[in-house]
Amino acid sequence: MQQRKLEVCLSPALLHLHDIRQSIVVVIDIFRATSSMCYGLANGAEAIIPVASVEACRSYEDTDYLLAAERNGEVVAGFDFGNSPFSYTAEKVAGKTIVLTTTNGTHAINESREAKKVVIGSFLNLGALSTWLKTQPHDVLLLCAGWKNKVNLEDSLFAGALAYHLKNEAYKLDDAAILVADLYELAQGDLKEFMKKTSHSERLKELNIEADIAFCLQIDVVDSIPVLDGDRLVKLV
Amino acid sequence: MQQRKLEVCLSPALLHLHDIRQSIVVVIDIFRATSSMCYGLANGAEAIIPVASVEACRSYEDTDYLLAAERNGEVVAGFDFGNSPFSYTAEKVAGKTIVLTTTNGTHAINESREAKKVVIGSFLNLGALSTWLKTQPHDVLLLCAGWKNKVNLEDSLFAGALAYHLKNEAYKLDDAAILVADLYELAQGDLKEFMKKTSHSERLKELNIEADIAFCLQIDVVDSIPVLDGDRLVKLV
Repeated sequence: MQQRKLEVCLSPALLHLHDIRQSIVVVIDIFRATSSMCYGLANGAEAIIPVASVEACRSYEDTDYLLAAERNGEVVAGFDFGNSPFSYTAEKVAGKTIVLTTTNGTHAINESREAKKVVIGSFLNLGALSTWLKTQPHDVLLLCAGWKNKVNLEDSLFAGALAYHLKNEAYKLDDAAILVADLYELAQGDLKEFMKKTSHSERLKELNIEADIAFCLQIDVVDSIPVLDGDRLVKLV
Repeated sequence: MQQRKLEVCLSPALLHLHDIRQSIVVVIDIFRATSSMCYGLANGAEAIIPVASVEACRSYEDTDYLLAAERNGEVVAGFDFGNSPFSYTAEKVAGKTIVLTTTNGTHAINESREAKKVVIGSFLNLGALSTWLKTQPHDVLLLCAGWKNKVNLEDSLFAGALAYHLKNEAYKLDDAAILVADLYELAQGDLKEFMKKTSHSERLKELNIEADIAFCLQIDVVDSIPVLDGDRLVKLV
C-alpha cells in the first residue's frame, strides 16, 4: 500500500494544525468515554449520540433514549449514568440508543467532524482497530482528548499503542507519534503499574474509579469499532 | 524546599492552559535558537534581543548590533547570519549585542513574557540550568517551541532531560513532564542515534545542518543561563 501519514495530536487544542479532511481520525479518551463507547456498542447498544453540552443531552428527555452525562469525572445530577464502562453492559444498553456528553471525549469527537471518517479507539478494541486501519488507504490522525485540553498520560499511551502496532506498516510517523510509540514500548509490560505514575492519580482515587481504570486498561476485550455516522456512533460494519 | 509544580508545555499553542505569572518558564528550541543563545552569551555576547518578526529585526539596521534572522531553517536574505551555533563563537559575538528572530524560538519567548522569569534552556547548559532551578522556590514550566506549533522530538527530549534531573527533587510533575522524562530515560544513552528517528530528518538533511545538530546535542558545554531582562537576554548573574 502507498505510504500514508500517521500523526498524533496530543490535545484537541492542537487539532487546527492538522488538515483532517482526507484523514481517518481516531478519537481517544481512555478514562472513560471512548472505552465505554467501544464496550457499549459491543454489548448491543444500537447507537451512541455524542453531544457537546449537558443541555443538549437533556433536550432528549422526552425520547426513550438513555441519557448519560459526565462532568469532572462524576455523573451529572438527574442523569441515568455517566461514562463508567460498568454502565454499558448488555443488560443495560442492548437495543438502546444512548445520548452522551462528557468533559473531554465528546468535545474531541465534535471537533473532528470534518474528517473523512471518525472512529473510536480504546485499549478494549486495540487489535480490531489497528487491523482495520492497516487496510485503509488513508492518512490517520490519532486525537487524544486529554484533560481539559492538557496532555494526559493514558490517552498518549493508547495513541502510542496504535502507533507502535502500525509503525512497521507503510506509515510515516510524525514526531508526536514517534514519541508516544516509544512511551508505549516502555509501558506495555504492565500498563496498570505504569499508569500509577500519572499526575491525576489523586484525582482518580478521589473519584473512586479504580475498578473502571483497571477495566479500561484491558487489551482486546471487544472486536467492534464505533464509527461516526451523521450525529451518531454505530458499529462499523 | 516546599513542593513546586514542574509542568511541560509541548507547544506554544497550549501555553494558554497554564498560568505562568508565578512560574519560571524555560524556553526550549534545541535546533537551533536556544542552543545558539546559550552558546552566544557564554562566548561573551553582551545581550541577545529576541524579536518576533523579520521587520522588527531589520528596524535595528542603523545600530551597531548584529542582526540575525532565520525562517524555515535558513538565513533570511540580507542578514548577517541566522541561528547556527557556529555563528555565535567568541570571535563573532564577544562584546556584541545581537538582534535575533527565528521561526519558533523567539515566538515562544514572546509568548512567555508574563512569567515571573524567562530563562533559556538547551543541552549545552543542561547541568547549570537544572542545578539553578533546584534552588528556586518557584513553579517551573518547560515550554517547547516545537515546529510551527507542532510537537517535535528534540524539544520534547530536552524538556524530558530537565524533568528527569528534577523529578526526585520536591517537584510534582504533570503528565506531559512524566511522559518526556521517560522518553529521555530511554534516549539518554545516545541522543544522536535517538534523534535519527525524527520525522524531520529529511528536512534537516536538506538544510545541510548535520554539524549544527551534532553540536546542539552536546551536554554541558557551557555553564551560563540566559535570562530575559526587559527586552533582552543577558547572562543570569
